[in-house]
Amino acid sequence: MNRLEQQLEFIKEIDKLKLVLRRCLLINGERYENTAEHSWHLAIMALVLAEYYKYKNLDMLRVIKLAIIHDLAEIYAGDTYCYDENASMDQEQRECASLKRLLALLPKDQQEEYSSLWYEFEKATTHEAKFARVVDRLSPFMLNFFSGGSSWKKHEVKVSQVYKRMSEIKDSCPEIWDYVERLLQEAVKNQWIIDDIKA
Amino acid sequence: MNRLEQQLEFIKEIDKLKLVLRRCLLINGERYENTAEHSWHLAIMALVLAEYYKYKNLDMLRVIKLAIIHDLAEIYAGDTYCYDENASMDQEQRECASLKRLLALLPKDQQEEYSSLWYEFEKATTHEAKFARVVDRLSPFMLNFFSGGSSWKKHEVKVSQVYKRMSEIKDSCPEIWDYVERLLQEAVKNQWIIDDIKA
Repeated sequence: MNRLEQQLEFIKEIDKLKLVLRRCLLINGERYENTAEHSWHLAIMALVLAEYYKYKNLDMLRVIKLAIIHDLAEIYAGDTYCYDENASMDQEQRECASLKRLLALLPKDQQEEYSSLWYEFEKATTHEAKFARVVDRLSPFMLNFFSGGSSWKKHEVKVSQVYKRMSEIKDSCPEIWDYVERLLQEAVKNQWIIDDIKA
Repeated sequence: MNRLEQQLEFIKEIDKLKLVLRRCLLINGERYENTAEHSWHLAIMALVLAEYYKYKNLDMLRVIKLAIIHDLAEIYAGDTYCYDENASMDQEQRECASLKRLLALLPKDQQEEYSSLWYEFEKATTHEAKFARVVDRLSPFMLNFFSGGSSWKKHEVKVSQVYKRMSEIKDSCPEIWDYVERLLQEAVKNQWIIDDIKA
């Protein structure tokens, strides 16, 4: 295959990300969200909310690249529920293997670029990755809240777990954190989340 | 509502784009593609294929912004099938109204930015928009071809229509055009598209 054919093979293959289902419902409750549309949502959220990131002017092209490629590894590895501690144990290993298999379709230079973006997001090594992770936390939080706490209830999630997961937002985007905390208190009041830190 | 609350309202509202169905099936034929995941696919395609755009070095942040916002107007207007000449007649009017209603949720400066990006894409006024339109043509073409010509067959599409629609690719991305033409000839051979220009 020549270079263009390799690239088109990759483009064909990633159509499968539209079939990977996540654990949260869309806001209207109709069905589960898939990873491709989730990635699109992140990209717009990043554009709209970048002004709240406190540390520096972000390279927005890099942020959006991170948003649209950060879940490519799920194509063969599937989505791992963030509050499933067992599945999370070998998540990195499964996802690395999946990413490697997928990116092997591309020419070498693009393999390297996307692989390094993926690790940048995973390890949160740059401000751009830290901010992309903020919207990656915020998005399912909003979907859960506005669909009536659907996946929190189903998986009996505890408020300490959500606090821990959302903590990446606290320092870097304090205004967004205030909003998250308000919604979290409401979710607890509504008994959508188990309150294990009241004591 | 303060600025952040307006922005989060917008982010909540655009969740609905995940429910707007397009006319082409996913490659595995399982279901119709929705507009949100389509927009994600375009963004990655743009990154991977930018080197084939012939005229200049593109501002890739702008290209990706165009890709992820170009179909926002479908939230209330729905998807208009590109080969449906009747529906296409009032498409612009319907979409402008829909876009205006949606963007009204945002603060003024972001309303203006996204509205101007949307028109830039629609009118193809920049190289970035022209290239984003190339991938917007290529993506459903590939989905149709690799799902066995599904929506071409269903809607009895003619090869002259496809040629006309794909012509934006020809001058600006000749290597991609060669690929498209090869697939198009195969689609005609397979009788997935009506050959109305053979004579």
